[in-house]
Amino acid sequence: RVLRIGLIPGDGIGKEVIPAGRRILEALPASLGLKFEFVDLKAGFETFEQTGAALPDKTVEVLKTECDGALFGAVSSPTTPRAGYSSPIVGLRKKLDLYANVRPVKSVGSKNPIDMVIVRENTEDLYVKEEKTYEGPNGKVAEAIKRISERASTRIATMAGEIALRRQKIRESGAPSIHKGPLVTITHKSNVLSQTDGLFRQASKAALAAEKFKSVAVEEQIVDSMVYKLFRQPEAYDVIVAPNLYGDILSDGAAALVGSLGLVPSANVGDGFAMGEPCHGSAPDIMGQNIANPIATLRSAAVMLEFLNEEKAAAMIYAAVDANLEEGKLLSPDLGGKATTEEVVADILKRL
Amino acid sequence: RVLRIGLIPGDGIGKEVIPAGRRILEALPASLGLKFEFVDLKAGFETFEQTGAALPDKTVEVLKTECDGALFGAVSSPTTPRAGYSSPIVGLRKKLDLYANVRPVKSVGSKNPIDMVIVRENTEDLYVKEEKTYEGPNGKVAEAIKRISERASTRIATMAGEIALRRQKIRESGAPSIHKGPLVTITHKSNVLSQTDGLFRQASKAALAAEKFKSVAVEEQIVDSMVYKLFRQPEAYDVIVAPNLYGDILSDGAAALVGSLGLVPSANVGDGFAMGEPCHGSAPDIMGQNIANPIATLRSAAVMLEFLNEEKAAAMIYAAVDANLEEGKLLSPDLGGKATTEEVVADILKRL
Ligand SMILES: CC(C)[C@H](C(=O)O)[C@@H](O)C(=O)O
Ligand SMILES: CC(C)[C@H](C(=O)O)[C@@H](O)C(=O)O
Repeated sequence: RVLRIGLIPGDGIGKEVIPAGRRILEALPASLGLKFEFVDLKAGFETFEQTGAALPDKTVEVLKTECDGALFGAVSSPTTPRAGYSSPIVGLRKKLDLYANVRPVKSVGSKNPIDMVIVRENTEDLYVKEEKTYEGPNGKVAEAIKRISERASTRIATMAGEIALRRQKIRESGAPSIHKGPLVTITHKSNVLSQTDGLFRQASKAALAAEKFKSVAVEEQIVDSMVYKLFRQPEAYDVIVAPNLYGDILSDGAAALVGSLGLVPSANVGDGFAMGEPCHGSAPDIMGQNIANPIATLRSAAVMLEFLNEEKAAAMIYAAVDANLEEGKLLSPDLGGKATTEEVVADILKRL
Repeated sequence: RVLRIGLIPGDGIGKEVIPAGRRILEALPASLGLKFEFVDLKAGFETFEQTGAALPDKTVEVLKTECDGALFGAVSSPTTPRAGYSSPIVGLRKKLDLYANVRPVKSVGSKNPIDMVIVRENTEDLYVKEEKTYEGPNGKVAEAIKRISERASTRIATMAGEIALRRQKIRESGAPSIHKGPLVTITHKSNVLSQTDGLFRQASKAALAAEKFKSVAVEEQIVDSMVYKLFRQPEAYDVIVAPNLYGDILSDGAAALVGSLGLVPSANVGDGFAMGEPCHGSAPDIMGQNIANPIATLRSAAVMLEFLNEEKAAAMIYAAVDANLEEGKLLSPDLGGKATTEEVVADILKRL
């Protein structure tokens, strides 16, 4: 099988970690029967400065018509509002209908093991970016629409249920796990937003009540209390499903628990397409120093492969990364180590 | 000075902790020259079941016309939507224009000391609760308005600046502190919500650029990264100012850092009125067992007093609570102790 992968480094350390993602795909053993072709694509603030568009049409077009998947690095946002600038990652998610943002957060060799997946709705909520500003009697007033649909909520909760079942299957095949059975936790704020988050809650519950999910335990948490519990008993969570913005916040919170945003991967998943994306940003403060942690990107390549049905290849990448972390000798500075990006990548490739 | 205080226990453990709040006010030494009168008022789910209104008009009326302040316990939300039910705390904040929700989060005797105040805008954002639902081509769609105004943003940022200055003054009077100087961190998500959160950001920055705040350092954090940093380096934060919903989420997150929601107080503050409110909920699982931690409410009474310009009385309550925690002998179960609500209250009153 040949997989054609778009590479979108973006800005800052995106340019240092995406090449690492490419290298790990190229280094996968031939025995898997997988070949990769790569297409370099542009997006980001630098692209905006050069071309006037942060997300060129061509990038979208090539991904849509030629690619099976993609790796997206990170982009810098302008520090003061710039006319015409709009976040390319938000644009890509919508234009390619990558409706699920899947963010596995797993500790390696920790006394307090964590192993959860945050499944974030990726197309609506406040990210529809429908805003307006007007003059009120006491100055400016701005409004934004938060939109929640039955369809998107059903779809994301179904995805969460399927991920819970898949994780359970891996456990049953003998993989060690801190979880006894599959659990999906629905996160919302329906005590205040009875219609929007109420709909998310209701549609999620209905989707997870389907016969195929009968082995999956389902519970719910109000988002503020979810953040609290995430920090007090993170080991309790298996799969968390959330509307877009809560998912964004929860996944950064979960990243803090495993020690560094530099470890946390994600994939933006649609029907038949997956785009890996490290959860960290473009980190201009450390760019160009060869000290960015490549692990979030390497793991993102694995999550992408999982959703392209290459679970075996994904498992090999996960295992190689875990082995590096378990040994703990070649770690990047965010993890308290002294290794360069290059050295971390080399160590992980060796373990493939 | 006579202060008239409305007591609104609400549901669940609200009924166990609000009496503790009353007792600590009554126990303040006569030398302060403070007298208290109390009015019992109703609100909550039980009130809704009995009267059809979760927030009776009379409660609002009495608070508005007769009271200087109030203590609010907690209310239970219906687990399935109930026609006519609407959160009374959200209603009170709006009806009394309690525009600031001030949530100090402080560790006592911890190796990793934390000492921050979250200043949450309390009247708008998604809490305007303007929602609608319609049938779309693929099922139901619900929308909510997120409203941010220049006026409310300016007002809350100004309050944050004033709190930062007040804290600095206390430091300069010789109180030990982990902070070198006053700092306000503005939290938003203007990289996605350029108009609404953009307005919050801009108005906050403008307010904090005022001459009187020239000694206050001002920085900003995108909300997802704020949650991350809150957990990675909580000691760095002094005053955090945020729109309503982010403030809600951040304060539960900060509560997790100090070990229990049962420790974290708040006050809902308007011009000339303050209502103390523990950050925890009604906790039906532990109600009636006399094990609820009263500290969040005792401290909320202190925050209320602070905003009624009774800083000396407030300081005495804070100190009595801190002394109980430092000794660590009479702690409620949420803190790993075995003491009853009653025993904790008695121990703290003794130290007043
Ligand atoms: C950069 C930003 C628009 C983005 C988001 O909010 O989704 C980022 O935080 C993420 O989580 O991918
Ligand atoms: C009960 C709920 C409506 C409330 C809120 O969201 O403000 C609570 O979480 C709080 O923080 O006081």
